[in-house]
Amino acid sequence: MNAKPNQTSTSPLAPESFPRMPVIEGVALASGSCGIAKSVRSDLLLVELRAGTTVAGTFTRSLTASAPVKWSKKAVRGGQARGLIVNSGNANTYTGPAGKQAVERTVEAAADQFACRPSRVFVASTGVIGQPLPYEKIIGALPGLGRQLSPMAWDAAAKAIMTTDTFPKGATRKAKIGRVEVTLNGIAKGSGMIAPDMATMLAFAFTDAKLPATVLQALLSDAVDKSFNCITVDSDTSTSDTVLLFATGAAGNPAVEDAGDDALADFKAKLDDLLLDLAHQIVRDGEGASKFVTVAVTGAESDKSAHRIAMSIANSPLVKTAIAGADANWGRIVMAVGKAGEKAAVDRLEIFIGGHAVAKGGGPVPGYDETPVARHMKGQDIAISVDVGVGDGAATVWTCDLTHGYIDINADYRS
Amino acid sequence: MNAKPNQTSTSPLAPESFPRMPVIEGVALASGSCGIAKSVRSDLLLVELRAGTTVAGTFTRSLTASAPVKWSKKAVRGGQARGLIVNSGNANTYTGPAGKQAVERTVEAAADQFACRPSRVFVASTGVIGQPLPYEKIIGALPGLGRQLSPMAWDAAAKAIMTTDTFPKGATRKAKIGRVEVTLNGIAKGSGMIAPDMATMLAFAFTDAKLPATVLQALLSDAVDKSFNCITVDSDTSTSDTVLLFATGAAGNPAVEDAGDDALADFKAKLDDLLLDLAHQIVRDGEGASKFVTVAVTGAESDKSAHRIAMSIANSPLVKTAIAGADANWGRIVMAVGKAGEKAAVDRLEIFIGGHAVAKGGGPVPGYDETPVARHMKGQDIAISVDVGVGDGAATVWTCDLTHGYIDINADYRS
Repeated sequence: MNAKPNQTSTSPLAPESFPRMPVIEGVALASGSCGIAKSVRSDLLLVELRAGTTVAGTFTRSLTASAPVKWSKKAVRGGQARGLIVNSGNANTYTGPAGKQAVERTVEAAADQFACRPSRVFVASTGVIGQPLPYEKIIGALPGLGRQLSPMAWDAAAKAIMTTDTFPKGATRKAKIGRVEVTLNGIAKGSGMIAPDMATMLAFAFTDAKLPATVLQALLSDAVDKSFNCITVDSDTSTSDTVLLFATGAAGNPAVEDAGDDALADFKAKLDDLLLDLAHQIVRDGEGASKFVTVAVTGAESDKSAHRIAMSIANSPLVKTAIAGADANWGRIVMAVGKAGEKAAVDRLEIFIGGHAVAKGGGPVPGYDETPVARHMKGQDIAISVDVGVGDGAATVWTCDLTHGYIDINADYRS
Repeated sequence: MNAKPNQTSTSPLAPESFPRMPVIEGVALASGSCGIAKSVRSDLLLVELRAGTTVAGTFTRSLTASAPVKWSKKAVRGGQARGLIVNSGNANTYTGPAGKQAVERTVEAAADQFACRPSRVFVASTGVIGQPLPYEKIIGALPGLGRQLSPMAWDAAAKAIMTTDTFPKGATRKAKIGRVEVTLNGIAKGSGMIAPDMATMLAFAFTDAKLPATVLQALLSDAVDKSFNCITVDSDTSTSDTVLLFATGAAGNPAVEDAGDDALADFKAKLDDLLLDLAHQIVRDGEGASKFVTVAVTGAESDKSAHRIAMSIANSPLVKTAIAGADANWGRIVMAVGKAGEKAAVDRLEIFIGGHAVAKGGGPVPGYDETPVARHMKGQDIAISVDVGVGDGAATVWTCDLTHGYIDINADYRS
């Protein structure tokens, strides 16, 4: 149950560098080491949000959700936020009444510091499951972090929430609401849907847009459905998954009361794009990943059905190991479609790899030439698309391959 | 899409030897090489069954079921069997109209040889998906095999149906129906629920008991639910899974018309035991397996719910890699319970590893000593049990660990 050492080498799929993240008025960040993570590294993030900041959130559906998830889930109903505290190295999951108390004490200390109600402080923890959280270390570090709060410290913030991640994850977008330009910044962590001991995927997005919490929640839920809910590394659902979106309102855009308002079209598009960017970065840092894989399914009974078929392909160990071996083994894709339990016309099934048809009409493509497909499989970005021939349902999901690296990270470190 | 080379070394979990299988009156077997498998090895099995043999079967629920599965599923409705043909090296799956034709031609040739209706000949194929089956090789080999039929050739039969298996799988039991002793023999193959290119799990059981097909089917379905449906290697469902049970009737036991008849109690127990033995042998030959894992769940809302929770644990890549690393990482078991989507009382959850309590009442066991648990994890037989504290539902499933061997077998052989 020891904390895992950080991985030493950066994922081959990592972006070239961390993006330049602009200031978002009303957001200040500070991070540092409070001694929860076993290795000496930054493991605590504190964010102060100006009064009037609205908030929306989506959380893991796991039955064994962590104590911080339970707190934040409740707090988000208030729609208002003044602070966010995130620690890495300990997930505060399956820690019983002590876990709940740890959250309450932490939140009270932060509420004192920001002179706000505890219910306006959000918390997230990521790391080992089943170990008591030494929350007094967090409380002890808060005043020092409070003195270092800065609107610029995005890169350090993204680093403080890392566990088995091999690179910090950030993204930024500009959008217009009416004639007013607003900014969206996001940071995330995650290297498996759940990383090993280290439960979880976390993402925090911030904007200076002025939006009611209800509108924010509608936009966030929709964006998460199309981004984080469409990625998988290993099919294991975290106990701590948390996505929070904070809007400080500093941009002074025209008032919007409804998520369907046309004035939000650009903001919505950019929010979707921001979260998808972060979600893709998590896949690109998937444990042991050597290839980034896009699985698109069309022709399904419904979008939901298409999503399930795509996930059946993306989660199949046999498909994922074939990709790791650069093997254009489409028979395994047929198998994964077959086991999905969704409607599909086997005789009209079409499978494309890298845009090349490999199977059609219930059998291999006549005169199939594997050469261009084999070439595609050797690349870093793999595209699989499948049409199941029964309707208009479509979905796209993203995953990575299953390699020796995954076994190394998850089995070998203690043996 | 090449056929995979056979694994060179035998699984460390293999039984010491193939069992001594007695003759079953009315069953004669022959096997040999017909050239479908790429390597020169036995790849064809022919079984002749005496007239009057009854049959029952269970098959994959995959939507992309193979052509032989479709044939046998239909033929089993007739309840009568005279022959069985099994080839390895090619699954005859996703092969379109040509695949159906290949089955029909093969069956017709065997029906001529046995002077029976084609509908009394059963077929199964295991191997590569999506390649036309060169059925003329099978037809060409049938007369030769017909001349070699022997009631003793069980070991060779078990070898002829292997693909990535590292050892032949057989089991035998004696049972009493009334005062008459009957024999049960079974052979199986499978090294993943689906092995790589090599789709599948196959099992064939034979008895000299005299039982109507309807009774046989009821007994078989029940036994399969408790054995083959309770094992998982990699969560990938085969397109060719087939279990067939043949009863020649030669033993001359008293007539039984109902599967619930008390006279069948012993037979039923031995059949259950035989199939469980074969199912366990498949797990023991799981691709890359180094540990045999029993996952028992109690206290669930229903047996079905317990089964789903047990499978969520047994299929979790993080649980399976922890076991491979001999890591008593019970936090991952908590995670797998949480993601199962079934009712569980998190605050009453109890987890035992090797009989030692590790978690209880929503947190770690007070004063938890990892020493005996760590010792258990280093062994070859791992026992995990979980009580979820809501009802009387119980289920046990069996799996193996997830090791570098699995990646080697499934990713590396072509790269």
